[in-house]
Amino acid sequence: MSEQVLEKLIKKVAKLPGLGPRSSRRIVLHLLKDKETLLLPIIEDMSKVANNIKKCVECGNLDENDICQICKNSTRNQTLLCVVETVADLWALERSNVYNGKYHILGGVLSAIDGINPDQLNIDSLEKRLESNVFTEVIIAISATLDGQTTAHYLAERLGKLDIKITRLAHGLPVGGELDFLDDGTIAQALKARNLL
Amino acid sequence: MSEQVLEKLIKKVAKLPGLGPRSSRRIVLHLLKDKETLLLPIIEDMSKVANNIKKCVECGNLDENDICQICKNSTRNQTLLCVVETVADLWALERSNVYNGKYHILGGVLSAIDGINPDQLNIDSLEKRLESNVFTEVIIAISATLDGQTTAHYLAERLGKLDIKITRLAHGLPVGGELDFLDDGTIAQALKARNLL
Repeated sequence: MSEQVLEKLIKKVAKLPGLGPRSSRRIVLHLLKDKETLLLPIIEDMSKVANNIKKCVECGNLDENDICQICKNSTRNQTLLCVVETVADLWALERSNVYNGKYHILGGVLSAIDGINPDQLNIDSLEKRLESNVFTEVIIAISATLDGQTTAHYLAERLGKLDIKITRLAHGLPVGGELDFLDDGTIAQALKARNLL
Repeated sequence: MSEQVLEKLIKKVAKLPGLGPRSSRRIVLHLLKDKETLLLPIIEDMSKVANNIKKCVECGNLDENDICQICKNSTRNQTLLCVVETVADLWALERSNVYNGKYHILGGVLSAIDGINPDQLNIDSLEKRLESNVFTEVIIAISATLDGQTTAHYLAERLGKLDIKITRLAHGLPVGGELDFLDDGTIAQALKARNLL
């Protein structure tokens, strides 16, 4: 492994989330097995993504256009707004195929440790969108972590002055989850929010 | 995830060894977090690798030159030749910092299931290198799998007609390995090959 350019690429790939030096070497060697069908096409696709993908000016989703497919889509429910942390969360909700309103991407959650304060999140733009009085309900779909819940409460308080229904995702047993392996907090939440069968 | 170019890249990254759709989405979103410092540099490094890295005409190693650093290096032992399956194996041996001879990359192992026969491996070129009478010993450093051992025996037979010492890597306990967790085959090999303390 005396090679400068090869080493540099391996180091860069090893820093990607979920990868390390070993998996990086494996991936780079795999790409080099056949440059024409493996390495060059992936470079081309990456360049296309780099050149074409931008943030939707409305919601913060990634798209080839300034306004994303979801914001443009007039068949979706225009009165529902779902607040999520990241694009990955938006994709997860879209895959579930249950929600058909609009989205707003916060860009993270408040965090004292990481020094994330409200100004660094897309909260101002969220308020502006809500002030248009188009939306009747805001669904806060933020992770059930400590920081996530802090953010949800902060949002609820800040948006409380607007005349809009604010809801959050239900807490409880995950589908397929075994009681035995669940943490106490989840079980307590599931018990509190129990409903008639 | 309505985006064509983005989806295409995610699908391509998901096919890399060790990755799947979930890790691929995570990696691509990570790269898009900051195009200037993440996505563009990795595209540049990949392009450099695609343009500059080629196979060494002597041993099959990857290098920026036609003859690799190892083959060029006159301070290495010129009489020892180590036969390995892949470039990854060569790198692994180099990391161990014990071997300082030359290498020959087979490009795989014989496999009835995958339909790999001797013509598809770099055996002809290996014979040619050995016929130069420069080497005094060939070390067969092939994985201890069934196919690997078949290949080792095939090589030993085919190279047997040349007047060169043929050796293979020792089998036994891996350093740090607990007896309790080792398979019977390894324990049997380690017992057979026991040596004086």
